[in-house]
Amino acid sequence: MLIIMDKTASDEQIEVVEDKIRSMGWTPHEIPGSLRIAIGITGNKGAVDPSLFSNLTGVVECIPVSKPYKLVSRDVKPEDTILNLSNATIGGKDLVLMAGPCSVESRSQIMEVAEFVKSQGAQVLRGGAYKPRTSPYSFQGLKEEGLKYLREAADKFDMSVVTELKDTETVELVSEYADMLQIGARNMHNFSLLEAVGRTNKPVLLKRGLAATIEEWLMAAEYIASQGNYNIALCERGIRTFETYTRNTLDLNAVPMVKQLSHLPIIVDPSHGTGSWELVTPMALAAVAAGADGLLIEVHPHPEKALSDGKQSLRPETFAELVDRLKKIVPACRRNFN
Amino acid sequence: MLIIMDKTASDEQIEVVEDKIRSMGWTPHEIPGSLRIAIGITGNKGAVDPSLFSNLTGVVECIPVSKPYKLVSRDVKPEDTILNLSNATIGGKDLVLMAGPCSVESRSQIMEVAEFVKSQGAQVLRGGAYKPRTSPYSFQGLKEEGLKYLREAADKFDMSVVTELKDTETVELVSEYADMLQIGARNMHNFSLLEAVGRTNKPVLLKRGLAATIEEWLMAAEYIASQGNYNIALCERGIRTFETYTRNTLDLNAVPMVKQLSHLPIIVDPSHGTGSWELVTPMALAAVAAGADGLLIEVHPHPEKALSDGKQSLRPETFAELVDRLKKIVPACRRNFN
Amino acid sequence: MLIIMDKTASDEQIEVVEDKIRSMGWTPHEIPGSLRIAIGITGNKGAVDPSLFSNLTGVVECIPVSKPYKLVSRDVKPEDTILNLSNATIGGKDLVLMAGPCSVESRSQIMEVAEFVKSQGAQVLRGGAYKPRTSPYSFQGLKEEGLKYLREAADKFDMSVVTELKDTETVELVSEYADMLQIGARNMHNFSLLEAVGRTNKPVLLKRGLAATIEEWLMAAEYIASQGNYNIALCERGIRTFETYTRNTLDLNAVPMVKQLSHLPIIVDPSHGTGSWELVTPMALAAVAAGADGLLIEVHPHPEKALSDGKQSLRPETFAELVDRLKKIVPACRRNFN
Amino acid sequence: MLIIMDKTASDEQIEVVEDKIRSMGWTPHEIPGSLRIAIGITGNKGAVDPSLFSNLTGVVECIPVSKPYKLVSRDVKPEDTILNLSNATIGGKDLVLMAGPCSVESRSQIMEVAEFVKSQGAQVLRGGAYKPRTSPYSFQGLKEEGLKYLREAADKFDMSVVTELKDTETVELVSEYADMLQIGARNMHNFSLLEAVGRTNKPVLLKRGLAATIEEWLMAAEYIASQGNYNIALCERGIRTFETYTRNTLDLNAVPMVKQLSHLPIIVDPSHGTGSWELVTPMALAAVAAGADGLLIEVHPHPEKALSDGKQSLRPETFAELVDRLKKIVPACRRNFN
Repeated sequence: MLIIMDKTASDEQIEVVEDKIRSMGWTPHEIPGSLRIAIGITGNKGAVDPSLFSNLTGVVECIPVSKPYKLVSRDVKPEDTILNLSNATIGGKDLVLMAGPCSVESRSQIMEVAEFVKSQGAQVLRGGAYKPRTSPYSFQGLKEEGLKYLREAADKFDMSVVTELKDTETVELVSEYADMLQIGARNMHNFSLLEAVGRTNKPVLLKRGLAATIEEWLMAAEYIASQGNYNIALCERGIRTFETYTRNTLDLNAVPMVKQLSHLPIIVDPSHGTGSWELVTPMALAAVAAGADGLLIEVHPHPEKALSDGKQSLRPETFAELVDRLKKIVPACRRNFN
Repeated sequence: MLIIMDKTASDEQIEVVEDKIRSMGWTPHEIPGSLRIAIGITGNKGAVDPSLFSNLTGVVECIPVSKPYKLVSRDVKPEDTILNLSNATIGGKDLVLMAGPCSVESRSQIMEVAEFVKSQGAQVLRGGAYKPRTSPYSFQGLKEEGLKYLREAADKFDMSVVTELKDTETVELVSEYADMLQIGARNMHNFSLLEAVGRTNKPVLLKRGLAATIEEWLMAAEYIASQGNYNIALCERGIRTFETYTRNTLDLNAVPMVKQLSHLPIIVDPSHGTGSWELVTPMALAAVAAGADGLLIEVHPHPEKALSDGKQSLRPETFAELVDRLKKIVPACRRNFN
Repeated sequence: MLIIMDKTASDEQIEVVEDKIRSMGWTPHEIPGSLRIAIGITGNKGAVDPSLFSNLTGVVECIPVSKPYKLVSRDVKPEDTILNLSNATIGGKDLVLMAGPCSVESRSQIMEVAEFVKSQGAQVLRGGAYKPRTSPYSFQGLKEEGLKYLREAADKFDMSVVTELKDTETVELVSEYADMLQIGARNMHNFSLLEAVGRTNKPVLLKRGLAATIEEWLMAAEYIASQGNYNIALCERGIRTFETYTRNTLDLNAVPMVKQLSHLPIIVDPSHGTGSWELVTPMALAAVAAGADGLLIEVHPHPEKALSDGKQSLRPETFAELVDRLKKIVPACRRNFN
Repeated sequence: MLIIMDKTASDEQIEVVEDKIRSMGWTPHEIPGSLRIAIGITGNKGAVDPSLFSNLTGVVECIPVSKPYKLVSRDVKPEDTILNLSNATIGGKDLVLMAGPCSVESRSQIMEVAEFVKSQGAQVLRGGAYKPRTSPYSFQGLKEEGLKYLREAADKFDMSVVTELKDTETVELVSEYADMLQIGARNMHNFSLLEAVGRTNKPVLLKRGLAATIEEWLMAAEYIASQGNYNIALCERGIRTFETYTRNTLDLNAVPMVKQLSHLPIIVDPSHGTGSWELVTPMALAAVAAGADGLLIEVHPHPEKALSDGKQSLRPETFAELVDRLKKIVPACRRNFN
């Protein structure tokens, strides 16, 4: 159930509604919106009787919500959510470009990449300091040292930082350094971690799990929102199918589908999504045409020496070509780029 | 093994090479190409010794081909294949737009749709006369009557016709009416049908099977080519995955991947690929950005009354909006559209 | 809609009901059953009004059938269907064992295998004479020559023959030699072939498609039954998933699920289902425990020399061990074996 | 690389080998085994030169291990691992039966279930106290209260307890109450949690992720083993495929495949694996026939009132029938049951 308040409803009128919700043993959620003031109800079992609220002063409408996700649903908030980072906005008219290496490998590596991708128009610097790896014997990241390098590079070149959290233990530390907290695909169903980032007010980049349906992905976002943090961007990064020529099957269908179902912005990661650098540029362009709000691209000065995921990283010159092509396609898709 | 002949090689020199191939118990395939004259060898078990051919007069090079598909591989023919239909070319600089209803339902329906989609820039008229359906009790198409209506509509509005073949029995009849023979997804592994269309010289639109890997799809094209028909366009129409919000998962990754592996053109069908008309326009635009040579779009004047697949058909006005958006995006993707 | 007639209903009473069905433009299907005489209706759009039939003499009950498959559904025929082959029954108390090579390669090969598998208790001889292959350059089978060898071997050792049909063109020829017609996984959606075998009265072994849901598989059986042939056994042979350690994922869950939904018998093929001979014996035993009515097992005297699928074929001695284990497990599963 | 020491090798000789490994910057792992003393090497990049170790005193053999998992591989330890719980062994001749409700809902519920399943032969009591749920608004478990009830019930009826850990924060608390720590499917790639349980010496039940390949699952086990805890049992619980009639596709092929690749025991959970109580009994029997070391079964006195997963829970009387059938099948599968 979603209760829509009159634009001119007073704080007191809102308080009356929320008290009534609490008195039923449920939880009210004030949902920020420029068009209208709305209050979501969660914790109810079964349908909520609209007559409980419809005659309270200031209440315009009571809308039943049948989808399992509520706070992240477009029913609840029709207008797009826009995230504001220090050097970028996500979800508005501008396409956001996030770029950088898979892993932070050294101070010089990240400084070199940051300078280059910034010069090409990237506003957000990506790079893994904590790397969840399939093998316990693989490189696991530079950890706090990596975070420091990321921050230094971003500050020097006026960029924002997005980087992955591996677990609840590191939420606090990573939050000190990063502007945006990334939840990796393998952690999309780590509910304790979702709740932990939900209790911060940091923007979150929530990757889709390898076998997660769109509904489960939105439910994972709902976990974060249910803790009070609405600063969420979704990130499509490929799902697991029977096809083996590509590492994953980047599911661009999810882009317009998510736009229809949710007010949250959606970013596409064609590097993990395809696993092959030759496919990154065409799939990045396709993502923009499908309506994505931004791109997350792996760039490495020397992919053949990368400590992780070299095969899917763009070289600087290939990244520059991608940017050239974006400059033509983005305006044709009714967006701005730089 | 692929034997590259000198541009100036005489017919006699080519004949000597082919005779030698036959004398080994193998089959020579002359592969049409503007850049070079090539002869593929099939039927060999294990590797072919290049020294058998390298010193014959007119032979420039002997290239081993390790992929299981040979005739359709880009190794064998580096330049793009272009199909010429009476009113369209497929695979060149121009984006081809194929549109029409899922099924031909009546003469007036197909005339109305043809006139409209032609006015919007479609060059090829689609429509099913033989409908392979999951249920034996569903509408199975108007059969020959439907073919006649299709032909009449196409002739009236200067369009070419693509329509589906259900089985080997109907190859001849459908070939009389259609300009391009469509092999549906459920028939992609119907090897007898592949061979039958391979023995015609009609252009073929080969849809990807629901669970077919890209390799298997190219092998299906190889079946057609192995019978001498190289006029093949591939059509990505969605694969089957665990996701249920979309009817299929349209796999746009296949577009740049096929372009890399094969010289054949590739068309994208976002109607079947997504199963939902709201997703057709964004995914059509994304397909173009990913590098597709054309689009296959279902359009119905009254989707709510369609005898099949109404949910995924565009209304005329929505199709017109798609065309408007294509006019902006296609040139930004280095292609021409009308 | 399913109309249940009284046990003692006369032929005349049945005729009255069927005439009424025809008068509505629908098709009646008499469904053989020992417990009750039933008449299915197909061809109707929307629900059928039971009052049309409920007061006709001899009619006991009118049951609405909501599943998309009707004739093959257990709602329509509660008791198990039993197929009678010359040397075996399928679907009754006895476990049926079908064994033989993937392909018939020579007269001596098939004679040797037949003698051996018969000595171990197999009642049905399998072997491919027409081989649908992914590559046009792979061995495609001995064709009619292979059929002759199969028939000769089966006759000599008192076995029945099951062998695959590749297309509609060969239905008649294969029917002359075989006791049971196999529809391969890649042909499960070849509707023309389904209808063609539906017009014979030969028992059919219908393999599940690589990406076919259980519902689609039952609908494919419905295609056969809708033409009047109810002699159908289903065959689970593995579905396509993301797992690559096994060639396919043998889906034994389908066994009890099919038993619940349909009256048709179900056979399991662990050779194709797993693609690895080491897994054949444990999965064959598991299939029996899950309730399968029979097993289809590839046996080759020299798997390393097999022209197809050697990796998944059992050697004679391994097949003998499987039979030893079956002798213990089958009775513990409330079935008979030899 | 795996270094096999002579049975009679002294502690000193072993120490010399391990020091040499450390001097190369790698990590030695002593691998417990009754047949031979082995030392695994991890942390190496590229192949290890056997001549570094082969002439040290006490070294019998140096075996290269090419699989990405080492410590859990059967190459490294040919004999089966057997876990010893207070009231059960897992991996030996005896089939272990783990049963109980999906969630612990109340003291009386768990006492009632425990008494019943124990009377039927279950040695291990299952029940969730911390429930990872797709929706933040679903019942999340009784938490520590639930653990207390589980412990009390298990103690009263001489059973061992297996229960799920939701996150690293609760490892210590759950370890106080449980005999075996369960890692749920959605946490299989929660590497921090894997390492945390690897640092305890508690037996671990590691469920397969919904989209995890067998290789990734064994790598997750390797994460636990790499921290020194070898007390691991794997649990197959169904993978995600396109099939929707079953909640998941229980992949029994994994049972013999894991047995071939690894020395770890494997348990099968047909309740989650199928999602439907009617399929639990046949798939449980099939699991035993495929070679599983044990079963994990959901039992609820009143499934229609269950707070989670009622649809897949057996009623007491159905569980009793399953046990009756197990008593016949288990001995036919060369195992003991009670």
